[in-house]
Parts: sequence; structure tokens; C-alpha cells
Amino acid sequence: MREPILLPLDQPELSVDLSGGLVRRTVHPSGLRVLTEFMPGARSATIGFWVGVGSRDEQAENNDAPGSLGSTHFLEHLLFKGTPTRDAFEIATSFDRIGAEHNALTAKEYTCYYAKVRDADVTQAVTVLTDMVANSVIDKDEFEMERGVILEEIAMASDDLADVAGERLFEAVFGEHTLGRPIGGHPETIKAAKRDDVMLHYREQYDPSTLVVTAAGAVDHDAFVDLVLTALNASPEERWHTDRPGTPVRRAQVPTSITRGEKLHITERPSEQINLMIGMEGLHSNDPRRFAYGIMNSVLGGGMSSRLFQEIREKRGLAYTAYSFGASYSDAGLFGIYAGCAPERAQEVLELSRIELNKMAAEGVTEEELERSLGQIAGSSALALEDSDTRMSRLARAEIGSGELYDLDTSLERFHAVTAEDIRSIAAEIAARPQTVVAVGEVSRAGSLDA
Amino acid sequence: MREPILLPLDQPELSVDLSGGLVRRTVHPSGLRVLTEFMPGARSATIGFWVGVGSRDEQAENNDAPGSLGSTHFLEHLLFKGTPTRDAFEIATSFDRIGAEHNALTAKEYTCYYAKVRDADVTQAVTVLTDMVANSVIDKDEFEMERGVILEEIAMASDDLADVAGERLFEAVFGEHTLGRPIGGHPETIKAAKRDDVMLHYREQYDPSTLVVTAAGAVDHDAFVDLVLTALNASPEERWHTDRPGTPVRRAQVPTSITRGEKLHITERPSEQINLMIGMEGLHSNDPRRFAYGIMNSVLGGGMSSRLFQEIREKRGLAYTAYSFGASYSDAGLFGIYAGCAPERAQEVLELSRIELNKMAAEGVTEEELERSLGQIAGSSALALEDSDTRMSRLARAEIGSGELYDLDTSLERFHAVTAEDIRSIAAEIAARPQTVVAVGEVSRAGSLDA
Repeated sequence: MREPILLPLDQPELSVDLSGGLVRRTVHPSGLRVLTEFMPGARSATIGFWVGVGSRDEQAENNDAPGSLGSTHFLEHLLFKGTPTRDAFEIATSFDRIGAEHNALTAKEYTCYYAKVRDADVTQAVTVLTDMVANSVIDKDEFEMERGVILEEIAMASDDLADVAGERLFEAVFGEHTLGRPIGGHPETIKAAKRDDVMLHYREQYDPSTLVVTAAGAVDHDAFVDLVLTALNASPEERWHTDRPGTPVRRAQVPTSITRGEKLHITERPSEQINLMIGMEGLHSNDPRRFAYGIMNSVLGGGMSSRLFQEIREKRGLAYTAYSFGASYSDAGLFGIYAGCAPERAQEVLELSRIELNKMAAEGVTEEELERSLGQIAGSSALALEDSDTRMSRLARAEIGSGELYDLDTSLERFHAVTAEDIRSIAAEIAARPQTVVAVGEVSRAGSLDA
Repeated sequence: MREPILLPLDQPELSVDLSGGLVRRTVHPSGLRVLTEFMPGARSATIGFWVGVGSRDEQAENNDAPGSLGSTHFLEHLLFKGTPTRDAFEIATSFDRIGAEHNALTAKEYTCYYAKVRDADVTQAVTVLTDMVANSVIDKDEFEMERGVILEEIAMASDDLADVAGERLFEAVFGEHTLGRPIGGHPETIKAAKRDDVMLHYREQYDPSTLVVTAAGAVDHDAFVDLVLTALNASPEERWHTDRPGTPVRRAQVPTSITRGEKLHITERPSEQINLMIGMEGLHSNDPRRFAYGIMNSVLGGGMSSRLFQEIREKRGLAYTAYSFGASYSDAGLFGIYAGCAPERAQEVLELSRIELNKMAAEGVTEEELERSLGQIAGSSALALEDSDTRMSRLARAEIGSGELYDLDTSLERFHAVTAEDIRSIAAEIAARPQTVVAVGEVSRAGSLDA
């Protein structure tokens, strides 16, 4: 069996030739980690600046708590608002004038700032991204302005009933666990957020030991590392200077159990459709059974030929969309089923979903389904890895996550080793866990929903 | 000045070496057109089957009318439902087992069925796409089932207030013009649709003279053409056999004037945000001023450094999203501005949007903005063209549209020839046209909105 590439925190240099790209990694004495994947023939590159801090790290019980709910996402917005040498407009124009695809995202366990640019524009992108991430001034007036923008972002999400269902599902399944918190916070926590608290969060959490810079595409590793180091050492903030020794940080990957929050959560809203979700505890991201789980998810609800799509949409015309999904984190995970349907048919869709999950738990999958799923995973993974975005993210997830990088062939070998019984067994375990039902929309028209 | 590649309907073979790819085109005596772009080093390909029939062609006044409102989109769904040799499940598994990214879309002027697959799977994808497009049986039971799916799709779109605003804007700006019709139809037209009418529409509109097959990536043109011809000639339907002579069809590119439908259209819905749009007649897709218009749109509302984004979001925090857009068709177009904001601030956002449009009409753009916009267009176009999807679509749009294919260098030369006065002039013309305001959400909280 092929083994993943290990990324130990005490190994300064690593170089591995993969089919499709050359992966190189530097762990600098400052604690900074830089990973690149050179893709032959690429004329562009995707660059990501990652910090292993996410919404779940807010308001923890210990003193390292980096701020109130939503402050990690608030900070992500603020890093676009100016440094001593670039105001917000200059940051915006720096990306726009080279036609970069750039953005940032806050997740439950990390925050990422990224840009995809032509090869000739890599230096420009790294310079600006470093300045943003290292040197934000978090101006008071900009802070107030951005508070309004974030409140509008939350309002927008609140008008999207599928978005609302997703947030409610995490809250209901994870209960008091930190993974249950909404990434963006609540309007009241955003209204109450203080500039100095967010600044403190920034200073405590962002430094070379937490920063992971990854790039894929047309990048030369040595030149890229030099570029990042030079940009960091130009910072007016001493904590970024890479002559100071530091120890890189990685989140522990220790499974914890969760206690379900709610069995049934209904959000009544006028609507044509009910957004219906069933959720339960899934697998944490490093669980060795994740390959069997991935195939189970694919057969149950991962495409037009999946059982949920066939039973709910194709055979009965009850929904436009029906699928299952997994979301995995360092210590726990969520498995979910989604369908949007007429309120009057919600109970029927709920029953059909449960029948299919239970059927898989009892009977597993057929050989034909297993084979099809392996083909689907191989094909879609190969297509996804043609994009430098996917490779850039793969490097970062491995580095800030388990410290194990699976290339495509190694992953596929693990998927091929899965047996039909492995799949039945994990389905049985998942199906036996306490289930939560979330419904958002005109639920009053649904009659009863069996939680 | 470089000239676009011309695609005359009476030229059987064409081969042009572009930077980044080799474009080849065959106009077969049957009327079938096949265009490919070989991308060196690509390990996958995107394949599209296009028919130049869209929602605007429904319920026309002449006898060629292909059905009731929404029947083109209904037909698109039905082509996934089975042929004499493949049922719906077999079609779904054909794509899933190779991990293809596949889907279909109905637009106002065309319908497209596409798949992105690994190089080794091109034959499989072409075989199934051809069978779907040529040999659909449109089974009565499947028709009824799919009616339910489409009603759910419409219900889903109806719950998305930004989607609703977009539909209302087209209706309000275009009035009685065929471009004003909703692509999916209305629930009542879908409920009334008859299987035999949709079948008639299919038989009348789909044949080698209306079919354009395009592919980009790892494709050899001659082999690809053979593949398509072989698959068509295997059809049980004689109209597809390519030994029958046919004349390829292209939609006329003749500008028409439109008469605005409504000045102000309000859809009252409970919401956190108002989805606000301003729309007016834009340019048709072949208008020679479209390069100046493109830059105008980019400077006004095409990115984080654009004027609308700066004035509405960055300086005032009034919205999370604010942008402008153009939608161009063979004979007319629409220019629009969108913002999602708190109802109480909608009038202010409306005024700010108009101030910016009028300012551009009066003063044009600065040299710095012009230069930045040219950089943005060059960079983002180069990045987009790395995807075979983009190149596949570019071939088809040129073939079913104007018959002129602009490669990147030719387009950029046209953009660079634009002067600041060209931009001011087109902005002045656009800004002087009758405007329509659409608001969807809790508009009752907005006070008055000036139409």
C-alpha cells in the first residue's frame, strides 16, 4: 500500500516528485511554512495565505480566546482595509489591474486569503497578500464601515433559506460543541464587536508560526520562498521578521464525542419550498474509515445516479435537488442529507431519505455501485486536480490538518481497498446515531414532520 | 488591426493556429457543424452539443413556434430521460462512472448539453451526448415525472429573491419583446404543457442543420468529427443521418428597438434585504461599440475597485454586493445595476447608483481607470481561457452567434483601441435611455423608491 507524504513539523526541507507536479516544502526556522506544487506547462498560479484559526476558536473557555462570535470572519474582511503603505482602494486595484481572481474565506478551522494570477503577476500577488496579512492597521473608521457590510452579508445569508438550513443543522447537530457556531456570528455579536478586541485577536493569532503559504502552478519553490521571506521582513511589525525563531503550530487531531443539540428544528418562513435537512454525527477528518465513508456518501447521494437522486427526483419528481454530504473537522464531523421540496411532500421526502440510509446500513452497496463510485471518484478527482486552485488547497489542508499529504494515486489505492462490507458497516454506524431534522420554509403547510 | 476569424456557413473546412490552441472547423454537407480547439498538454476535454433554439423562440407569431412558454427548458430536461437504447438511469450512470462534470442549460437564444471528461473518456461522452440529443423517446410517464421536477425548480428559483429580481428586470425592461420571457416558463404554462407539443418542438428544431458540436482540450479534430458522424448515423431517426444534405442555420444578427415594459416593478416579500436592480436597454451582441461598453461596465461596476463597489460598499457600508452587468443578444441587450441592501437604505443606494452612471456619462473615465480596466480584462481573460470550458463555449457562441471568432489577442487589440471619449459617449447613450427599477423584498419598509 502506498503511504501518504508525511509533513513533520521538524523537517526543514522536503521535495517529492508526484505524477503531475513537483511538491516542495520549507519549514523556516521562524515557524513559517511554505509549500508549492510546480505544474509543468502552467501559465498561471494560485497562491494562498492560510492561518489555522477559524470560527470555532472564538470565545473558548481558556484565555487564548480570540474574540467574540464572528470576529474571525470580521478580521478577514478587515485585512482588505489597509496597511501603512496601501489603503483599501490600493489593495483592491492591485488585484483588479492584473485581472486576478482573488478572495478570502473564513471556515470553522482556518482562514484563507488567495489569488489566482498569470505567471508574470506572482510577485505582485505575493507582495500584496503578505502586506494585507501581516500589516493591517484596522483603522477605526474602516472598522465601523465594515461592520455595516458584514451585517448586510448576514442579512443576505438570512434571506437564503438553504443557507439558513445549513447553519441551523450545524447548530442542532453539534449542540454546545464549538463546531456548532455560525462562522459569521450573529447580528448582535457583530453590532457589539470592538475594534481593539479584533486587533488583539489578530496580533495573538497571526504570526509566522501560524502562517502557511501555499502555491500551485507556475511557481519555482526557492524563488517563491525568497519572495515570501522578503515581503515578511519588510513588515513594520517585528513579530513577522523571520530572523526570530518560532515553532510552527498545528491543530491537534483528537476525536471528541458530540452531544446532539436538537432533534427537530423548524424555522418558519413564507416560501414555495421547504429546505429539509437530516443530520447526524459523521467522521472526523482523519478517521481511517473515511474512504469507505466517501464511497457510501457517493452511492447514497453523490450524483445523478445516486440512490437519493433516483428515489426522490427521478422516480417521483419530488425535488429539483437531493443529495448527501459530509463535513469533517479535526475532532468530529457531520453527515447530512438535503432536499428542497414542496411543503406538502416534506414528510414523504424525509421518509424516503431515511429508508435509503437504513437500506444501505442493512444491505450495503452492490458491486456495480462500488465500481461506479470508484470510477466517479477517480474521474472527478483527476479533473479537479487540473486546476491549480485545487492543488494549492490540497497542500494547505494537509499542512494545517493531519500533516499527511495524499496524492491522487495514494488516495485511489485506499478507495480501491474498500470492501462492500466496510461500506455497509460505516453506513450502519452512521444511521444508528441520533438524528436531527431541520426544516426551513413554510413548514406549517407540511403537516407533521417525524423527527 | 487584427481581424476576427470568419466562420462562413459555406466554407467546409477551416484551420487556424492560435496562440494557445489550434482551432479547426468542419461544416458537413448535412449542415452539421463541428468546431474543436486542441490545447497542447491538456489531459481532459470539454464537449458541448449546442442547438440555437432558446426560450425566446417559444410562442412566436409565425407557425414555426416550437411550443408554449418554458417548453425549450422542459425539453432540455427530457433529453436526459431516455432513448431506445439507454434509459434515464443508464444515461446518469454513463456520466457518473467516469466522474464527468456534465449538465445542460437553456438560455434565451440557445440550448447546450455539455460534459468535461478525461481524455480517455471523450468517446464515451460523445456517444452518450449524441444519443441523448438525437434519440430521445420522451416517454409519457417520464414527461409527467419531469413536470414535477421543473415545478420544484421554479419554486426554488421563486424562493431566491435575487433570482426573482433578475427575472422581473428582464420582463420590465424588455416588455413585450421575446427577450423578456422567463426561460423556465411559469408554473401555469408548465402545468399545461403537453408531451406531444414538446415532441413536435424537438422534431422540428433539432437536426443536423441546427446542431453545433464544439470541443476544447485533448481532442483531435478529424477523429472527433468521425466520432460525431458515426454516432449520428447510428440514430434510428432518419433526420439525423448525415448522408442527407442540409443547410446550416444561424440566427440573424439584426438590431431591433425595444419598448420598455414597466418603469417600476415591486415584488413585496418578507426579507432582511431588498434586491434592487436598475435596468435599461444595452447593446446587442454584435454592436461595434461593445468594447467601449465592456470597459465602461468594468469601471462602473466590475470588481472591488469599481466605482459602484467603492461608493456603495467601501465608502458607506450599505451593501455586501454591488455591481453592474451587461447581457447581450442577437438583436438587443440589457444593461443593469444590482445591489442588495437594507430596505431603509434602498433609496440612497438607488440614488448613488444613478449618480455614478450619470457621472460617467458626463465625465467618462480617467486614464488610470482605463489602464486598470485593460489590465483587468487581459488578466481575467487569460485565466479564463486556461479552462477548456471557456474555449469550448467561445467556439459555440461565435458559431451560433455572429459567425466571427475573436481570439484573445484580437479582442485585446479592440479594447486597447478604445478611447476615454468612446467610453463617455456610450455611457451617455446608455444613461439617457428609459430606466426601469425593480425591487424584491420587504419594499414596504423602504419608504418611496424613485423610478
